[in-house]
Amino acid sequence: MRIAVLGTGVVGRTIGTKLVGLGHDVRMGSRTADNERAAAWARDAGPNASHGTHRDAAAFGEAVFNCTTGSGSLEALEQAGRENLAGKILVDIANPLDFSQGVPPSFTVCNTDCLGEQIQRAFPDTHVVKTLNTVNASVMVDPSLVPGDHVLFVSGNDAASKAQVTSWLEDWFGWKRDNVIDLGDITTARATEMLLALWVRLYGLFGSPRFNFNVVRGQIGVVE
Amino acid sequence: MRIAVLGTGVVGRTIGTKLVGLGHDVRMGSRTADNERAAAWARDAGPNASHGTHRDAAAFGEAVFNCTTGSGSLEALEQAGRENLAGKILVDIANPLDFSQGVPPSFTVCNTDCLGEQIQRAFPDTHVVKTLNTVNASVMVDPSLVPGDHVLFVSGNDAASKAQVTSWLEDWFGWKRDNVIDLGDITTARATEMLLALWVRLYGLFGSPRFNFNVVRGQIGVVE
Repeated sequence: MRIAVLGTGVVGRTIGTKLVGLGHDVRMGSRTADNERAAAWARDAGPNASHGTHRDAAAFGEAVFNCTTGSGSLEALEQAGRENLAGKILVDIANPLDFSQGVPPSFTVCNTDCLGEQIQRAFPDTHVVKTLNTVNASVMVDPSLVPGDHVLFVSGNDAASKAQVTSWLEDWFGWKRDNVIDLGDITTARATEMLLALWVRLYGLFGSPRFNFNVVRGQIGVVE
Repeated sequence: MRIAVLGTGVVGRTIGTKLVGLGHDVRMGSRTADNERAAAWARDAGPNASHGTHRDAAAFGEAVFNCTTGSGSLEALEQAGRENLAGKILVDIANPLDFSQGVPPSFTVCNTDCLGEQIQRAFPDTHVVKTLNTVNASVMVDPSLVPGDHVLFVSGNDAASKAQVTSWLEDWFGWKRDNVIDLGDITTARATEMLLALWVRLYGLFGSPRFNFNVVRGQIGVVE
């Protein structure tokens, strides 16, 4: 499959390398065609890896992974081009965190809106599925780094797209289907983006990003 | 021990009943001295239970549990009186959720501030410890309702107060010490209050409040 990975940071490179390793053709997008980090990644990742502008990558991909910094995601996606995103699944991994004032970061959007919703509103013909944003890049593509059961969330307006992405999470990255929780429409991405506030604190506490959340349920059906 | 429980809702009544059952003297506070729900609770809970205004309760208690609605907590605590809270541990269980526009609720404060911090700033002589706010009332006082390991968080500026509250969580409510995570100072309460966004969505999805979060850790010491 031809896949666009927008963003040249740790998340983009990790996802891109994993997908190339699975035999997909991956094009990494960045703001400029000559981005050094993207070029180096493409060189190292092998013949199925290429790079270009966000527009090049989005035009190339049958599906698109948004691995850009949250504060720059909308601009990056505008560069990618509405027509190159239309009708495609956009896996949105970005979080709207602002580290400019240090740690803890603040959210550039939260509470009654979120980045996933902003993207879906800006690109109504694209199937935005928010997921993977609540774990470290290494855990995204290898959930066995954290032992036992722990979960991912998916949020999106299109059920078929969420089902497709869930299959990708299972088949490509090794997530157990039972550990992927479909929270509902894209407004539920508010909840997983805001979870980053806790994630960042735990990262600081543990000194390692290799952890994840599990949701443990008691007796089913009890309402109180 | 003499304990004040401010608030007559499910959380206040559940905490109050549990504490009375353990042999503590509990006074439930509300806005008025003749609150019907508080009176009924005190009648049912037995001779160690009493009720009064927030001021009566806070004056009575050696420790104070804030179980009021988040949007009314600061006003309730002002009624309780600065002098009645000074030097005491205030276990803050409230969440700043506004359900006036329906579900999902919005936060009245979040991101770069939170209710726990607002309370600590307003009552600098009180030891505010935020905890228990991330689980349903029934689970607060009986964590065995959710099987296996799952966690609580504590946030506060005073280490001794957090240690005291952690002992209460263990001795009074049955939480395993290893499942109580000290996140840091009171600013970390932002993270646990914002976790409610996810809690509310999961409650809607499961149709039951008997669930909780666990934090699962991978290999310790890995930094990437």
